[in-house]
Amino acid sequence: MSDFHPPSPDPAEQELGHTFRPKFDVAGLLTAVAVDDASGEILMLAHMNAEALAATIRTGEAHYFSRSRGRLWKKGETSGQIQTVRSIAVDCDQDALILRVAVGGDGGACHTGARSCFFRTLQPDGTLGEP
Amino acid sequence: MSDFHPPSPDPAEQELGHTFRPKFDVAGLLTAVAVDDASGEILMLAHMNAEALAATIRTGEAHYFSRSRGRLWKKGETSGQIQTVRSIAVDCDQDALILRVAVGGDGGACHTGARSCFFRTLQPDGTLGEP
Repeated sequence: MSDFHPPSPDPAEQELGHTFRPKFDVAGLLTAVAVDDASGEILMLAHMNAEALAATIRTGEAHYFSRSRGRLWKKGETSGQIQTVRSIAVDCDQDALILRVAVGGDGGACHTGARSCFFRTLQPDGTLGEP
Repeated sequence: MSDFHPPSPDPAEQELGHTFRPKFDVAGLLTAVAVDDASGEILMLAHMNAEALAATIRTGEAHYFSRSRGRLWKKGETSGQIQTVRSIAVDCDQDALILRVAVGGDGGACHTGARSCFFRTLQPDGTLGEP
């Protein structure tokens, strides 16, 4: 199901090597940022366990692990906002991923109806407002 | 030091309201993605506790919480890669932030010397290579 190489104790291997060694945290999760491949817009941030990562790689469609629901979750399974993965970038210590995706359905990613989950910006007065 | 409103039990208030209610996880952290404000490139992903978030807002320079070192960390304190914050976007459930930043020093963000921490991409053969 999910047969990844373990993280290396050697920082040079982990951070500069060519072996994919995803580093899951104590909860068994890593962080994934989904970016619209066409526009470069950051759509959402979510988490993956090993099963979600393996399913994403195997199917080419983004799967996440819902921390609130405690289960694997294929993005778009109910909304139609399927995320077809164009590329997966890995950060230096391999505990975070950027997925560049093409989005199905209405092209959005947020359950609120917004295109991106990041639709509010912190204002100088400390409230949230439009970007 | 850090006096934020607590998350609301009302999803509509948390997800659509105008009150900043940062939602820290069980470890007291939320996730921050730093983006180069000029280019839109994702530079790094890191975590903030309430103290780091408060310091970031107060100083206008990005502070994070290092999970490996277990301490507050001002980005660039040794490298000179200070991140001056241009804007902070908040996601729907308020557990993730996007910081658009101008980077000091050599303009990079990764301790490996790369500009972005996401300098490797998963290849079709399962190894990591150039984007």
